[in-house]
Amino acid sequence: MSRNSSYRRRNDPAAEKLSLIPLGGLGEIGKNMYVIEYCDEIIVIDSGLKFPDSELPGIDYIVPDISYLEQNRDRILAILITHGHEDHTGGLPYVLPRLNVPLYGTQLTLGLIRNKLADDLPAFRPDMHEIRAGDVIKIGSFTVRFIAVAHSIPDCVALSIETPLGRIVHTGDFKLDSTPVDGRVTDYGAFAEEGDKGVMLLCSDSTNAERKGFTPSERIISGTLDTLFRTYRTKRIIISSFASNVHRIQQVADVSARFNRKIAFLGRSMIRNAELARETGYLKIDSKMIIQVEEIWKYSDNQLVIITTGSQGEPFSGLVTMSRGENRSIDLGEHDVVFLLASVIPGNEKLVNNTINRLFAQGCEVVYEKDRQIHVSGHASSEELKIMLNLTRPQYFVPVHGEYKHMVRHSQLAQEVGISPRNIFLMVNGEILTFTRNNPPKKHGHVQAGAVIIDGQAAGSIRSEVLKERREISEDGVIAVAVAVDEKGNLLAPPAIETQGVFISEDSGDIFKELYAVSEQAVQELSGRRANPDALRKAIKTRVRDVLRKRNSSFAVVMPIVSVNSRDSGNIFEKEFF
Amino acid sequence: MSRNSSYRRRNDPAAEKLSLIPLGGLGEIGKNMYVIEYCDEIIVIDSGLKFPDSELPGIDYIVPDISYLEQNRDRILAILITHGHEDHTGGLPYVLPRLNVPLYGTQLTLGLIRNKLADDLPAFRPDMHEIRAGDVIKIGSFTVRFIAVAHSIPDCVALSIETPLGRIVHTGDFKLDSTPVDGRVTDYGAFAEEGDKGVMLLCSDSTNAERKGFTPSERIISGTLDTLFRTYRTKRIIISSFASNVHRIQQVADVSARFNRKIAFLGRSMIRNAELARETGYLKIDSKMIIQVEEIWKYSDNQLVIITTGSQGEPFSGLVTMSRGENRSIDLGEHDVVFLLASVIPGNEKLVNNTINRLFAQGCEVVYEKDRQIHVSGHASSEELKIMLNLTRPQYFVPVHGEYKHMVRHSQLAQEVGISPRNIFLMVNGEILTFTRNNPPKKHGHVQAGAVIIDGQAAGSIRSEVLKERREISEDGVIAVAVAVDEKGNLLAPPAIETQGVFISEDSGDIFKELYAVSEQAVQELSGRRANPDALRKAIKTRVRDVLRKRNSSFAVVMPIVSVNSRDSGNIFEKEFF
Repeated sequence: MSRNSSYRRRNDPAAEKLSLIPLGGLGEIGKNMYVIEYCDEIIVIDSGLKFPDSELPGIDYIVPDISYLEQNRDRILAILITHGHEDHTGGLPYVLPRLNVPLYGTQLTLGLIRNKLADDLPAFRPDMHEIRAGDVIKIGSFTVRFIAVAHSIPDCVALSIETPLGRIVHTGDFKLDSTPVDGRVTDYGAFAEEGDKGVMLLCSDSTNAERKGFTPSERIISGTLDTLFRTYRTKRIIISSFASNVHRIQQVADVSARFNRKIAFLGRSMIRNAELARETGYLKIDSKMIIQVEEIWKYSDNQLVIITTGSQGEPFSGLVTMSRGENRSIDLGEHDVVFLLASVIPGNEKLVNNTINRLFAQGCEVVYEKDRQIHVSGHASSEELKIMLNLTRPQYFVPVHGEYKHMVRHSQLAQEVGISPRNIFLMVNGEILTFTRNNPPKKHGHVQAGAVIIDGQAAGSIRSEVLKERREISEDGVIAVAVAVDEKGNLLAPPAIETQGVFISEDSGDIFKELYAVSEQAVQELSGRRANPDALRKAIKTRVRDVLRKRNSSFAVVMPIVSVNSRDSGNIFEKEFF
Repeated sequence: MSRNSSYRRRNDPAAEKLSLIPLGGLGEIGKNMYVIEYCDEIIVIDSGLKFPDSELPGIDYIVPDISYLEQNRDRILAILITHGHEDHTGGLPYVLPRLNVPLYGTQLTLGLIRNKLADDLPAFRPDMHEIRAGDVIKIGSFTVRFIAVAHSIPDCVALSIETPLGRIVHTGDFKLDSTPVDGRVTDYGAFAEEGDKGVMLLCSDSTNAERKGFTPSERIISGTLDTLFRTYRTKRIIISSFASNVHRIQQVADVSARFNRKIAFLGRSMIRNAELARETGYLKIDSKMIIQVEEIWKYSDNQLVIITTGSQGEPFSGLVTMSRGENRSIDLGEHDVVFLLASVIPGNEKLVNNTINRLFAQGCEVVYEKDRQIHVSGHASSEELKIMLNLTRPQYFVPVHGEYKHMVRHSQLAQEVGISPRNIFLMVNGEILTFTRNNPPKKHGHVQAGAVIIDGQAAGSIRSEVLKERREISEDGVIAVAVAVDEKGNLLAPPAIETQGVFISEDSGDIFKELYAVSEQAVQELSGRRANPDALRKAIKTRVRDVLRKRNSSFAVVMPIVSVNSRDSGNIFEKEFF
């Protein structure tokens, strides 16, 4: 590696230490980012995003706070990406321009990242290094082995990272699917080998730690699809799935071929991902089978399958526009059946449910999770997690990639297979777990960690007060009271009031009269002295709020606006900035 | 019935008609209200509320729009209540003062309603008539038979309503639990009898039409509880459940007695409902077993069960305050186990999930739906629905009480048991389905229907624009721009700007300068003529929005505020109301 020469290696053994610092992914599903630091060398695993819940109105997505990495940019050797899902790669458009360090990933993973960057940072050329499962590379003092794992997107890897103080195995997202669609089975042998060599620390995927038993193989979807295609032999079939789940698209393509149906892709990410996956050979569909959505009129219902986005009820996706009757190419009706080949990600229940109800209202039949096994998870369930723990036999264990409840359950599984509770660390984002040569590891303070919120085109961090303000006004609306005064604080015009989202109950009829009156009083009481905008704002706010509360009328946010005409400065345009 | 004499009975057979008008409960779970109208006589079934989803920020709850009933108040003979759940009774504090008609219900149902009205309308004395399952009463031209049904609250009834044009069976909420906790089995015989006499129309509960098979008996919870009490023999047990699910509380009490544990109730509605149910004999617990929360310090962990509210993650409930470490009486820790004995109502996923994560963070064990069978539904699944269809053998069928998808599935079940699709009516709230003597029933226009929103103390209908405004400002915040002008439209002071919840990206540094400037320009361009506040507002809004859009800074709502000082009127206090 070219940066090798730049390391400052510590020679003091007492100072020799290795740290794990999660910057995202603990206590949450999303924005995965884990830092591994040996002396003055840093490698980073993944750079994900997280989609916000309804508590963050108007926010597009969230990425980890990387202040710590920005402060230590010179020490970062690489970012290793385990796979191409957004919760592992979606932070890169934010992270890469700020750190600009080499990126390592498999072919499909890098392809997806390239597509993403082409949209968000068209001029940016990252330093990308393609690796393959099985590769072993040296990055500074770290020797990284990439291990094949099965998941709900192809070309995933786990990492075994050898450091001078011991080996760290990071599973990435995985399941132990014995019959994966692409035949690329999780490399049990490699994990066992690492276990034999000795694993100091295991960081393992906790997503499904609550689930008993084994996660079924992705391949069972084929059977369900076969039954469904037979049942709805005469109908046009519309299928909604995750655009990144290439294995599932492959199975749809295979059953479509058997039933002599053509495939049309709909939805930007679906079209683009299918294209990339076909180019790179991860998706195998005969070109003759693929048609454009514009050509579907040439075919009868029983010759068509439309594969589209929208399985999570995303507002502008193919399926949702169809459910609203607003899709330019496709009108749904009684001759259609829709298969929702995905489970609902927690938080999206309402969106998906509304979509299903609208689809029924369009007259078509809808097949969804309640009816059939049409989705299997990409994450290992508890029996698989115990196998991973037994394969690697780690000395220490940190459950990662999960909410707190998942991490607790995962640590219970680790105890079941014999790991002592004091060798298990439940961490939070930003915490530092430090390993040294002579003492047991221990938690050792915090680095700055948290969320950076990406709001529309403005990619920057949004103040949390702004979000608090949005929540407040979304509850009960806002009442703005504007007054203009001269330099002595005398009113220049009557106060003006406007509202947004405010509900005043019918029985508080003349409340506005009272609001105007108290606003005026507030100004008059402070007049005569040099106008003080802060005092005016405070007085107006208090008076107006009191009236609203007293009359039980509204809990709206009161926003006073004060304009002072400083004639003494001779300039009407001198403004009082806030 | 005393009102009998006031009927104007139509003697024209051509005009004789019977109508079903759902005012709430179709296409939704919640705010059930069904109107049955024979000539000029009206009876109403249930008056429910619905809790709002996140699309209605700041709203407390929703009740049906009863304009139609208010307009026809004189014709209403009674409101019949099927059972005591909020989605069937919660609208009464809004409905009763507006209609003030006699109310019919069973003992527990009326008891719950009395408690509710005591809070909301302490001075109101409704005309209540207690009935029992099995009773047959005449109300005008209607003869109503009340039929016992099992559900997740005691003392539920279905209705068989004989009218001059035919019999209507309305199931209410039901399941066919063969071993209900209170032994009060759904009265199959009565439904069969009505079926033998001939049912013209069946309106049946669609909630679980998606579910295959049978809903398990409530009694199975006893077995689960027994296992859990044994597993966690040494721990203090905290149980969260619906306050109205008396059967489940009974089972908890029974197992607590077997394990020699005392019971403390926590949470206002839990305490009050348990009291009412014990007084009326629906809940049987030895007084010696019940202790106050304040006394729990006297007992060791393995002698205690605390039954509390909060199974849906309600913000101020007992369980949620405990999970935040904010409960005055109870501190949770490693010696505690929490059982969440309820499933998550769609829409509450996030709240419940956050509560579980916080409980784990307090160090206690948590047992919830993922782990065990600790909840069974109170609604019939598809096999039970088919049995109900076969018992009553209706000529016509209207699926009620469900989202659109549930109603579609229920109508498919009806077709499976042999009801012709043209005898099945999928209705929406407000639609009128009319039956006459000589022609098949048909849909026949609409009455006003929809939602009345109850917002805080202000019980009145909130304009939908207000909700739209709240949504808008919650997305991107609000920018208020205030200008004060004289009667000629000249600025009296510089424009003033305030924001709430607005995020301006870092790179648009001096954007406020520009906003002040364009606001001034907007005023100046319109000055010289008599001031026109509307034109001023429009000009400011357009200019400010253009700047924000052009600079890609914000999609905030722009709220212009204009104050005109009409000196010519000689009165500075004359305001321009909006």
